[in-house]
Amino acid sequence: MAVPKVKQLKRTYGFDEVAIVPGDVTINPELTNTDFKIGDLTFSIPILAAAMDAVTDVNFAILMSKLGGLAVLYLEGVQTRYDNPEEVLAEIANAPAEKVTSLLQKVYSQPIKENLVGDRIQAIKKAGAVCAVGALPANTKRFAPLAVEAKADILFVQSTVTSARHTSRSVRGLIFPELVKSVPIPVVAGNCVSYSACLELMRTGVSGILVGVGPGAACTTREVLGIGVPQITATIDCAAARDQYQKESGRYVPIITDGGFRKGGDLCKAIAAGADAAMIGSIFAQTKEAPGHGYHWGMANPHPALPRGTRIKVNTTGTLEQILFGPTSVTDGSQNLIGALRMAMGVCGAFNIREMHRAEMVIAPAITTEGKSWQLTQS
Amino acid sequence: MAVPKVKQLKRTYGFDEVAIVPGDVTINPELTNTDFKIGDLTFSIPILAAAMDAVTDVNFAILMSKLGGLAVLYLEGVQTRYDNPEEVLAEIANAPAEKVTSLLQKVYSQPIKENLVGDRIQAIKKAGAVCAVGALPANTKRFAPLAVEAKADILFVQSTVTSARHTSRSVRGLIFPELVKSVPIPVVAGNCVSYSACLELMRTGVSGILVGVGPGAACTTREVLGIGVPQITATIDCAAARDQYQKESGRYVPIITDGGFRKGGDLCKAIAAGADAAMIGSIFAQTKEAPGHGYHWGMANPHPALPRGTRIKVNTTGTLEQILFGPTSVTDGSQNLIGALRMAMGVCGAFNIREMHRAEMVIAPAITTEGKSWQLTQS
Amino acid sequence: MAVPKVKQLKRTYGFDEVAIVPGDVTINPELTNTDFKIGDLTFSIPILAAAMDAVTDVNFAILMSKLGGLAVLYLEGVQTRYDNPEEVLAEIANAPAEKVTSLLQKVYSQPIKENLVGDRIQAIKKAGAVCAVGALPANTKRFAPLAVEAKADILFVQSTVTSARHTSRSVRGLIFPELVKSVPIPVVAGNCVSYSACLELMRTGVSGILVGVGPGAACTTREVLGIGVPQITATIDCAAARDQYQKESGRYVPIITDGGFRKGGDLCKAIAAGADAAMIGSIFAQTKEAPGHGYHWGMANPHPALPRGTRIKVNTTGTLEQILFGPTSVTDGSQNLIGALRMAMGVCGAFNIREMHRAEMVIAPAITTEGKSWQLTQS
Amino acid sequence: MAVPKVKQLKRTYGFDEVAIVPGDVTINPELTNTDFKIGDLTFSIPILAAAMDAVTDVNFAILMSKLGGLAVLYLEGVQTRYDNPEEVLAEIANAPAEKVTSLLQKVYSQPIKENLVGDRIQAIKKAGAVCAVGALPANTKRFAPLAVEAKADILFVQSTVTSARHTSRSVRGLIFPELVKSVPIPVVAGNCVSYSACLELMRTGVSGILVGVGPGAACTTREVLGIGVPQITATIDCAAARDQYQKESGRYVPIITDGGFRKGGDLCKAIAAGADAAMIGSIFAQTKEAPGHGYHWGMANPHPALPRGTRIKVNTTGTLEQILFGPTSVTDGSQNLIGALRMAMGVCGAFNIREMHRAEMVIAPAITTEGKSWQLTQS
Repeated sequence: MAVPKVKQLKRTYGFDEVAIVPGDVTINPELTNTDFKIGDLTFSIPILAAAMDAVTDVNFAILMSKLGGLAVLYLEGVQTRYDNPEEVLAEIANAPAEKVTSLLQKVYSQPIKENLVGDRIQAIKKAGAVCAVGALPANTKRFAPLAVEAKADILFVQSTVTSARHTSRSVRGLIFPELVKSVPIPVVAGNCVSYSACLELMRTGVSGILVGVGPGAACTTREVLGIGVPQITATIDCAAARDQYQKESGRYVPIITDGGFRKGGDLCKAIAAGADAAMIGSIFAQTKEAPGHGYHWGMANPHPALPRGTRIKVNTTGTLEQILFGPTSVTDGSQNLIGALRMAMGVCGAFNIREMHRAEMVIAPAITTEGKSWQLTQS
Repeated sequence: MAVPKVKQLKRTYGFDEVAIVPGDVTINPELTNTDFKIGDLTFSIPILAAAMDAVTDVNFAILMSKLGGLAVLYLEGVQTRYDNPEEVLAEIANAPAEKVTSLLQKVYSQPIKENLVGDRIQAIKKAGAVCAVGALPANTKRFAPLAVEAKADILFVQSTVTSARHTSRSVRGLIFPELVKSVPIPVVAGNCVSYSACLELMRTGVSGILVGVGPGAACTTREVLGIGVPQITATIDCAAARDQYQKESGRYVPIITDGGFRKGGDLCKAIAAGADAAMIGSIFAQTKEAPGHGYHWGMANPHPALPRGTRIKVNTTGTLEQILFGPTSVTDGSQNLIGALRMAMGVCGAFNIREMHRAEMVIAPAITTEGKSWQLTQS
Repeated sequence: MAVPKVKQLKRTYGFDEVAIVPGDVTINPELTNTDFKIGDLTFSIPILAAAMDAVTDVNFAILMSKLGGLAVLYLEGVQTRYDNPEEVLAEIANAPAEKVTSLLQKVYSQPIKENLVGDRIQAIKKAGAVCAVGALPANTKRFAPLAVEAKADILFVQSTVTSARHTSRSVRGLIFPELVKSVPIPVVAGNCVSYSACLELMRTGVSGILVGVGPGAACTTREVLGIGVPQITATIDCAAARDQYQKESGRYVPIITDGGFRKGGDLCKAIAAGADAAMIGSIFAQTKEAPGHGYHWGMANPHPALPRGTRIKVNTTGTLEQILFGPTSVTDGSQNLIGALRMAMGVCGAFNIREMHRAEMVIAPAITTEGKSWQLTQS
Repeated sequence: MAVPKVKQLKRTYGFDEVAIVPGDVTINPELTNTDFKIGDLTFSIPILAAAMDAVTDVNFAILMSKLGGLAVLYLEGVQTRYDNPEEVLAEIANAPAEKVTSLLQKVYSQPIKENLVGDRIQAIKKAGAVCAVGALPANTKRFAPLAVEAKADILFVQSTVTSARHTSRSVRGLIFPELVKSVPIPVVAGNCVSYSACLELMRTGVSGILVGVGPGAACTTREVLGIGVPQITATIDCAAARDQYQKESGRYVPIITDGGFRKGGDLCKAIAAGADAAMIGSIFAQTKEAPGHGYHWGMANPHPALPRGTRIKVNTTGTLEQILFGPTSVTDGSQNLIGALRMAMGVCGAFNIREMHRAEMVIAPAITTEGKSWQLTQS
């Protein structure tokens, strides 16, 4: 009997299954440069705060910008639905667990006030900060002009899965090449996880790609829909698309790994896997400055027919500055993310992010054994 | 020394080890079509309720048919042994744990009343529902004529493992090609798990195949006999057999994945792996309409020398309609199975089930990491 | 840089990682034959009781023989060191946990009485049972003549690892080809786990091979020495050696998988992997007739400098007959081992053990998911 | 579409995932030789005690030397910062958990007294012991002359990751070829984990290499930086570098596996993987003679911005002699490491360490199943 032709599945990997191999050359961490660019804008740290209501509000966006990173303000959350979003956020934080899903469904059924879009953006801009905003593909045509008018710097068009070719019932859906031509600011699109989908999105002319769909087995996207790709493989595949796109177009479009991070080691792994930057959600929901009051929830919670995700209690563990730069007395990698990244780059002999992309990685079992710690670097 | 010739084992995969990759094209969920066919009968949802006493009785079969699916009434369970099966079902539900095995042995040692076979079928038909019935291979010759006479629409011939070639002590066992010729309704046979066994069964002329033997490591079939194949690999292999059979015969015989489902994501994965439909047991035992009163048990229990399966307490979580179509406030994927399937199809750009068979899948570790949920689709 | 030449490691598999695939042909379990042969002796069930003090004494050996199997009496344990071994066994069972290691060291430091060797063998033979005895390689020259004189039927020469070529300080170690020539009864040797070691041992002329060294990660041999091979791979490799040896010599030397069994499914998997029989320890320590009084301990305990293994409390779960043949009301596969084997053989279409060796096996993850049980066979 | 070029990751293995296969030839353990050499110095056991304050002080170093091994005194810990290090060590042991990180930061901020370097070395030498000392690369130029002057026998230059090529801001970092030429005693360098980094370090002229960076998933190096390679793969790769270097230079440079050991089986596996010796930390922190008073901590703790590792309570389980040579009544492999190594060598037919490097190894799942223990060797 001939060998039957069966569907082939490739093995994919998540953060916990891989590790970075030290380089043959090492450098001192102070010599490393962590710059990251979107369009012509340069950020001194490759970190973005997620467009989630528990993470980014106006104040958080201003602080992130001052610290060298970028926070994305969600244009379809409480910030644009309520004049006083703080009240609503406190209500969500104080709701008993059994009522929170229906409360969220109610909160997010309020209409968006277009004037608030401009107000929020201007508040960020007035503080001298870079302002990025995020909208769903379905509503981008409506919000993009408002954002541009209010002088937003970058537009994120983001949904769980975004493709360059989408079919809908509406007469005409969002066409990325048209969007990119019509708005004078960089557009970042996502999320996607595969080589081909990423490459297609890059060819539409966008200035950045968000990578990550259902990264973990416990993700609601994975649980409910069976959809998802572990984050290291998704990053590796989309990095290959970026390199291919650069070869064919001459343009370097950064990829931003989004989702699944829990500690500094994960950030280092994402960068080594090929990410230009990382978008961070729940770790930032733990900062003192986060608007979530120690809680975090996904934006798919309110879905009326198929809610996914729940409100999660996160501990407030420190200030945003501590989590990014230390100093810290915790030893689990949840603080001083940039210090960890610089040390890892030093150990891999990488002077900058793109050199770090060349670090060797291995598949390493997530089996707990004893380890020994030693002073990290030579000098 | 020459390399010794040793037995080769291929790696197989279950639901928890795989995930679906979003497509390069996406569509709105409303545009998807979930039709499924057995013979000339079309069902609007690709879901079957298992031929188990805790799942399917007359009322449940009528309701499933109205909702677009199909329930299979087991002809060798309490429905045909007792005039008032409800009493017996309540007795099983109320029995203390330590007495339930012997109670089940007693309950299933009562003789089957042939007149009840016709009564149950006619009750379903009178309600305007499609009626499917199930029997063991050993008793099919006895029950098939009764079922046909009572106007059943489909006959399921099902045991843990069913092959096209079976040797027994009886003068003449069940010969599928003869059965198929002798009954004027579609015959669905199973279960099987391998390419070759599935292909042989299809060649006997049956109209559908049930796929699934000992899918999980905790299955009693796997524990007691060591027999079993994880469900994704079994589905992929049998789908390959279906495609091969269609190539050689021109006939498309659907495969129905049976066993191991726990949530919406599993259903989406089974379809993406190549299943045309899914047979569901314990999730339906959790519906308010299920005859099991919040309990579920395997039908192999009564075997006196080697009982397998035990009565399991399942929680009643909602109505059948909620579990199939929502709306829901639970976020773990156990409700709104069809909504989840349509969303997954949309994300994969699949307009119908057969397009969904082409979705890319990956092997993804079942390691729990943080995930982020976002509104799913663009429109 | 050229690819460095590094040590290669092949992946091995244990019971929990594999499963058996049903065959394309099935047969009724009553039609299966489970005969097993050592030399000219035929046993109706392929099961041996281990040469361990908590498992085999005179009475147990007689019972096993009557039930169709074979128990091996250990010639270097309490049975030959004490006139009343029952007293000592009770003392071990009653010792508090913290004193049991030193008690075992004391118990096993008593000298062996040569007259008891003959007494025990004759007691077994007088009851009409087949008598197998076991000794360590170092003491085989001393015990073999005594065993032969007392009319033992089979001699087991067994240590953790036994090779055809052993170097020791003594003037002359055990030479298997000489031993086999000098004793007129079949010699079974072991344990070994690799193709080459097994093939070498077969070439010495022995009549059977015991397979199994450190099968599980929690085995003391694996913990303390790092030595061991998971049992399915060891069985597959040694079965390949047996087939190779048969090809070159015309002689079929059975292999007996020893160690790591916990339930019926494991037995079925061992046979499907190529074993002719299985030696069972702790499952039999759980029988009412076992001399261990509900305890089990390894024979390496007494080693004064490096004790391995501990006394383990096992539950007494049934009679030996129940465990071998049922009937049973437990559903976890720990009882009715032969019933399970026959069912598995039926599902694989195997009329006898050697046909069962051809059953297809797969690597299947030991992840717990829901399974459904159905009546097993058609007829 | 052409297959995209994506980053490739090789699978790596740790202690818990591998096992050693018994050889075709076996020998009695008494016939094995466990000698290990650094430069011209021969040690009768291949075991080194780590340069950590909780493990090695003057007395411990003397005792290790007498027992045939080697302990490395850390020149940048409490021994050279305090006239009475015992007081400080007791203070660390007695500190409450919430204060220990800041206490360690304080303790290690005291300056090093150069006179104490000589004092400690001479105390070891006076007792007739071999004296090895360890320093960080950054401080080696300062300490090496002091150590040589005080007649130290071996110099360890060690940090988490050490490469032959390091770039720092200082005018001139440590150049290994120059160091090796300038000091008249053997230099051992580390740690490294890859073939290429190890080979480069050997080519600088050092006399030994320490292997191990972030061996376990729970290592702080892995958690915080994402950096690390499981220990078996690291050892195999560096052993390949050693063999390659010997081929090109004629010089045999031993590799010392450092980190991740928990029991005798791990030691045997490291040697079988190619290690010439093992450096042991926490197991020795458990000895009665260890200076840590039942505690153990990494030397990277004091780092003010990114502390890694914490003080861990270890149980004092026996004397150093018991842990190395027994006798013992524990059965978990944590004692009599050398007895275990000799037994494993015997089972593999290895007369010495380099023959043990040829032992076959397999990838074996760390799934717990029952195992059986039997007297280990034949004679």
